[in-house]
Amino acid sequence: MPLLVVGSVALDTVETPKEIREDVLGGSAVFFSFAASYFTSVKLVSVVGDDWPESHTRLLRERNIDTAGLQVVPGAKTFRWRGKYLPNMNDRETLDVRLNVFQDFNPVLPEDYRRAQFLFLANGSPSIQLKVLDQVKGAHLAVADTMDLWIRESHEELMEVLRRIDGLVLNDSEAKLLTGQENLVKAGQAVREMGPKFVVIKKGEHGAMFFSKHETYVLPAYPTEQVVDPTGAGDSFAGAMMGYLAEQATFDPASLKKAMAYGILVASYTVEAFSLDRLREIGREQIEFRMAQYTRMLSF
Amino acid sequence: MPLLVVGSVALDTVETPKEIREDVLGGSAVFFSFAASYFTSVKLVSVVGDDWPESHTRLLRERNIDTAGLQVVPGAKTFRWRGKYLPNMNDRETLDVRLNVFQDFNPVLPEDYRRAQFLFLANGSPSIQLKVLDQVKGAHLAVADTMDLWIRESHEELMEVLRRIDGLVLNDSEAKLLTGQENLVKAGQAVREMGPKFVVIKKGEHGAMFFSKHETYVLPAYPTEQVVDPTGAGDSFAGAMMGYLAEQATFDPASLKKAMAYGILVASYTVEAFSLDRLREIGREQIEFRMAQYTRMLSF
Repeated sequence: MPLLVVGSVALDTVETPKEIREDVLGGSAVFFSFAASYFTSVKLVSVVGDDWPESHTRLLRERNIDTAGLQVVPGAKTFRWRGKYLPNMNDRETLDVRLNVFQDFNPVLPEDYRRAQFLFLANGSPSIQLKVLDQVKGAHLAVADTMDLWIRESHEELMEVLRRIDGLVLNDSEAKLLTGQENLVKAGQAVREMGPKFVVIKKGEHGAMFFSKHETYVLPAYPTEQVVDPTGAGDSFAGAMMGYLAEQATFDPASLKKAMAYGILVASYTVEAFSLDRLREIGREQIEFRMAQYTRMLSF
Repeated sequence: MPLLVVGSVALDTVETPKEIREDVLGGSAVFFSFAASYFTSVKLVSVVGDDWPESHTRLLRERNIDTAGLQVVPGAKTFRWRGKYLPNMNDRETLDVRLNVFQDFNPVLPEDYRRAQFLFLANGSPSIQLKVLDQVKGAHLAVADTMDLWIRESHEELMEVLRRIDGLVLNDSEAKLLTGQENLVKAGQAVREMGPKFVVIKKGEHGAMFFSKHETYVLPAYPTEQVVDPTGAGDSFAGAMMGYLAEQATFDPASLKKAMAYGILVASYTVEAFSLDRLREIGREQIEFRMAQYTRMLSF
């Protein structure tokens, strides 16, 4: 089934201990869409300025990503993020954020987008996420991401989002911040009690945890030695997870676990190069190759 | 088969955000032996002072741990360690270390101990570890632990240990320190190139990684919400791992992976109370119960 994603599209400048890349294709909805596109067709809703290279849109379209919902605002500038990774390649500092045109993003969805059965609310304020939920009322599965900024500054609206979605995906540090719990098992359960049927905590190089009423589990990251740029790993994790669920047209417990594993494996490719460079090189075949290795790794 | 362990026996004072416990039973060889005792008989070699409570020795003997190699030195004091856990319960500060009688520990093994087929060199200086290796020459499997102190201060002797053992178990931070590699996959492979056939990197609440010439894998920790005191988690991980291998009398790849899983599960019980308190309450049955859950958790 098609998958609808609403979130940021950005031009990123990324500093790693070895290299700097300027104004590369980024943003939560971009990484999400690209990762999901191995599994299903995607409809992307976002906004950019007229500094946005048309070649980026073509790249997304070639991957069966519908960009009809990508507004280009004349005279405006695209969202820009600049970050620097520490030598451990797991922690990073944000050096500069310019929301630009994303600041006033007001998603108005085409009529056929409103009937989406699989919906992901990628990084964006809870008020934007609520506007989307108001328009997409009958989704079979609605999942959101959030971040520290919204936990700190838009707490009440975020709580409303949590009551209206099926699943939430967030980082370990965000789960601790949201719940005040240092233990991630307790934190995950506490987030679930805020509303969603399931919660996924992303632990970066340490994998991901899953929480539902009846299940708590952890899956490790795929061990990769080639970590060039972790930007977008979390968003491509979510994209592959949701892409697989949309492909299967279900979110039963067994599919959710397999979807988590796909998320982990696509993210393991994402970090192997800057921006979408590694994902552009691979197909479903390479993902299935790692899935076979990963399944073997976890069998005993 | 019986398993021989040489390492520290200590009285620990542990501070957690919620509670302080003074002079409780601890030490690498104690946690190791107790964890291994679910799987096989254990011979423990270490040294204590005459402040050592006889009840602790009885506790170990009741678990089929042979304490004939535990020297009691009159007029000397037992090794003491005092540490404090940070609120995340994963990081800790050492507040005080008094090696006391362990400072001059010179293990002289009884003749029948020297024929041990399964040997573990728990925390102790590389010079102590080399003395043991000189006495136990025909072991089927010899595995060692090490720590930051020895990596920094006894580098050459540690390198000799690494050339003479089959396996090394160490923490993530220690693997980075030993190799200068921030990426754990690279670090694990680099340690293996220093000599051992296999290397296990313990990642605390994030599980453990395994490296041999032909295999690299990660297993996650068992998700437990009741983390009371992580002291001894790493040593009991190694104890259960080695105990299972000694029970199976092999260290083929399939057994090694299952042994790692047992290590993770016994460690998940260790952290649920101070000292050996939680391990004293459980039997093999509880370990097998978590093994069934863990196997299910990693199946998809």
